[in-house]
Amino acid sequence: MAGVDASESIHPFIPADLILQDYVPIILSQSTILSVYGCASLLVVSFVWILAGRFRRITKLDKVLMCWWVFTGLTHMILEGYFVFTPEFFKQTSPTYLAEVWKEYSKGDSRYVGRDSAVVAIEGITAVLEGPACILAAYAIATRKSYSHILQIAIALGQLYGTAVYFVTSYLEGDNFAASPFYYYSYYIFANSFWVWIPSLIVIRSWKKICAAVDNTQEHKKTKTR
Amino acid sequence: MAGVDASESIHPFIPADLILQDYVPIILSQSTILSVYGCASLLVVSFVWILAGRFRRITKLDKVLMCWWVFTGLTHMILEGYFVFTPEFFKQTSPTYLAEVWKEYSKGDSRYVGRDSAVVAIEGITAVLEGPACILAAYAIATRKSYSHILQIAIALGQLYGTAVYFVTSYLEGDNFAASPFYYYSYYIFANSFWVWIPSLIVIRSWKKICAAVDNTQEHKKTKTR
Repeated sequence: MAGVDASESIHPFIPADLILQDYVPIILSQSTILSVYGCASLLVVSFVWILAGRFRRITKLDKVLMCWWVFTGLTHMILEGYFVFTPEFFKQTSPTYLAEVWKEYSKGDSRYVGRDSAVVAIEGITAVLEGPACILAAYAIATRKSYSHILQIAIALGQLYGTAVYFVTSYLEGDNFAASPFYYYSYYIFANSFWVWIPSLIVIRSWKKICAAVDNTQEHKKTKTR
Repeated sequence: MAGVDASESIHPFIPADLILQDYVPIILSQSTILSVYGCASLLVVSFVWILAGRFRRITKLDKVLMCWWVFTGLTHMILEGYFVFTPEFFKQTSPTYLAEVWKEYSKGDSRYVGRDSAVVAIEGITAVLEGPACILAAYAIATRKSYSHILQIAIALGQLYGTAVYFVTSYLEGDNFAASPFYYYSYYIFANSFWVWIPSLIVIRSWKKICAAVDNTQEHKKTKTR
């Protein structure tokens, strides 16, 4: 073929032979990108914590869960939603913060910038279905809806399933998408681990609550029919 | 490169340039493959139906659901499990029935014979986690366990999530993996549709049951505290 054009090949991602035509380098520093995300998340969590306190008979754990659901829901809808619906984010000449986030994260997993179809499919389902459902979960906890636990399990299982497909597809394709071990462990492993252990804990807790409610109903029925 | 070797290129799948070294053609006819699956399934369903009748206070719908869970569980474990753990099924010179099934199905979606990583990841999760869970679901219905509905929702949502990733990844990659419109609609669309509408109905039913149980418990508590 033709000789490799400079505009196609200069990028910090692995595999190095990944072709990204018109790639525009990252402008923001890693610390800027992370602190904007951190501060925005802190603001959201503080706001939800205060708001949650205004509901009747709400426990501390309920408040923590509401903060998690709003935080993860907004992450799904805004960050992941931007990725899903902006295939050419790495070409943006007037760079936006969200494009910078995904260029930075792609150092940990270049399948994002390379637009791997499994990653796009998982992120699409997460952004479009799970994101709004997370906000609904926070509302359901606050207003003590009867579907609160089952909704939380449904979303958490979706997050776990998505993360499983995400890791397994990478493993099957050789697990060679990180620019360095630092990015591999900090972005790919550490950052994603929150979407493994938090949903797992939520599934376990809500599963027990539902079983207790069903048990209760069955015993109540037995008492009645005696 | 070197000229295309006959052993690499002659297969009935689309895209035609998919390279399958040492591909061994299908021996069994479509009708044989389908009728073996149909008869085996009928046997399983009949056996479960009779067995289910021996449990106390079991409704007709419970029996139908038990048949579904055992049928889909065995399909996940045996058919899909074979696919996951036999990467070279299309090379088998002494062909087994299961290898023939996947060669035949690949006419509807060549990503199976081409070992697409998203397909392998989904099938792996389905065969290893969901398969055994389906058998547990049948047992939970029969023995009226308190986790029966929540387990059914968890598996059904997993099946729906898997099917969603399965269809979306194909769409993102151009949706051109079927040997003909006949195979596209009969295998890829029609056969898979059962794992869309049946899990959907199960989720709706069990969701309502759980909400009713939680409502009951909450009302019961209110009555007590009054």
